[in-house]
Amino acid sequence: MKDRRIEHITIHKISSGEINEMEDKVAVEEPLQIELEYSTASGRMLKNIAVTMRTPGNDEELAAGFLFTEGIIKNAAAISEIKRSHADENTVQVILKENIIPALGNAARNFYTTSSCGVCGKASIDAINTVSAFTAEKDSININTAILYNLQDKIKEQQQVFEDTGGIHASALFDTSGKFMLLREDVGRHNALDKIIGAALLKNELPLNNCLLFLSGRASFELVQKAVMAGIKVIAAVGAPSSLAVEMAKENDITLIGFLKSNRFNTYSGKDRINLK
Amino acid sequence: MKDRRIEHITIHKISSGEINEMEDKVAVEEPLQIELEYSTASGRMLKNIAVTMRTPGNDEELAAGFLFTEGIIKNAAAISEIKRSHADENTVQVILKENIIPALGNAARNFYTTSSCGVCGKASIDAINTVSAFTAEKDSININTAILYNLQDKIKEQQQVFEDTGGIHASALFDTSGKFMLLREDVGRHNALDKIIGAALLKNELPLNNCLLFLSGRASFELVQKAVMAGIKVIAAVGAPSSLAVEMAKENDITLIGFLKSNRFNTYSGKDRINLK
Repeated sequence: MKDRRIEHITIHKISSGEINEMEDKVAVEEPLQIELEYSTASGRMLKNIAVTMRTPGNDEELAAGFLFTEGIIKNAAAISEIKRSHADENTVQVILKENIIPALGNAARNFYTTSSCGVCGKASIDAINTVSAFTAEKDSININTAILYNLQDKIKEQQQVFEDTGGIHASALFDTSGKFMLLREDVGRHNALDKIIGAALLKNELPLNNCLLFLSGRASFELVQKAVMAGIKVIAAVGAPSSLAVEMAKENDITLIGFLKSNRFNTYSGKDRINLK
Repeated sequence: MKDRRIEHITIHKISSGEINEMEDKVAVEEPLQIELEYSTASGRMLKNIAVTMRTPGNDEELAAGFLFTEGIIKNAAAISEIKRSHADENTVQVILKENIIPALGNAARNFYTTSSCGVCGKASIDAINTVSAFTAEKDSININTAILYNLQDKIKEQQQVFEDTGGIHASALFDTSGKFMLLREDVGRHNALDKIIGAALLKNELPLNNCLLFLSGRASFELVQKAVMAGIKVIAAVGAPSSLAVEMAKENDITLIGFLKSNRFNTYSGKDRINLK
């Protein structure tokens, strides 16, 4: 079966004045339209909620995770069905149950008033905090440094698309003993995380307050915000965090790790969950 | 003067079981609200067009570049003034001239119908092509490989915020002889590019059809789309391109280079502008 996540193309490699034509693989980027069907006073309504540029695959998880991390739905029980539009493989329809009212006020603020999505602006940290159901969730996580040092090796075994293309972000979940649970890859780092959270949502595994979230790149405000929505308490990123990501992590008692390497890392907040022994 | 692009924070470095508290720097990420004032049948209107999470600095360029690359304004002559909202240093108001009608239909399609912005979905490649003024622009670019091999060394001298934080994207312009022209850094790669294009727009230097665009990361559809809007013909990215970025580049006769290193690179389209000698 064709892997829709990878496209085979012809490229030219140029090196020391030599040019060679060869086959290569790139990560697929295609739009996904997320539509929401829900009840209104005047009957059922089908509304286009977002279009995101994503790598195909796990689109149902992406749609569910997106609606959840943006605060539009509160739980998996809100969803009656997630289906493909038959006309278009790049459209997913999320059908809400009869009695469920989506919090499009959140969406309105997040997407239409402020036009935010993807890497774009959110409301303030306070606004996010009012939306998340899991900010008060407790944990007793105590992670050995060795587990963190080993994360990247474990990820490498799982990153199929990255290995082929070198051009895709990954989000992954581990348990606190370092056991691998789930990985998703996407050209959009926010999509990779929405797929992870959507998968957990659809399996009724939220909150993820006893998991460790691995991010293959930098930690932005948006990614930390999505983690907050899912009740995640420990984030380990290969790259640097931004100022607002650090602030958001501190505000929500999240352990935020950056510059994760095989023998060292930095903590930007929540160092007490790290066991140095 | 305080550099608003960098925040000083206290972190913990953990290495081989040792923990050390120290001062460190992170790249600042803050929302920028872009407001547009324009004429309607019922008088002047001030509308919130977008909020983007950006690194402060060159906000006027970012606002102007964003409005241009999204097809909302056609040129710098549309702008009467760009000013700060006095109440909020994270708001920029772009005031259009009396007779200018912004193409919010483009914005409506791009932002409200499809909720796209940032890394999120655009309309199709065709739709973009109808909006860009410069797709038919000609060039006679012929770049020596040595110029491309040297780009990263030249960039390193200019990337002030990256050097301090390790956590920020850069876009830069060079002329075709490899002479450095302009660099902008931002936590959002699309913002870095909008700042570059906005700076050129405000100096009436568009189209940039005799420039070389350097991208510090991966080449996504969105970045190639913005380059098309500015008439850029050569893009050299340190990272991998996506499938749709390659398609967009081919469609618009752009030379797209990926995996740029000091002695080699790949071309995904437009190899004929590369001089192997």
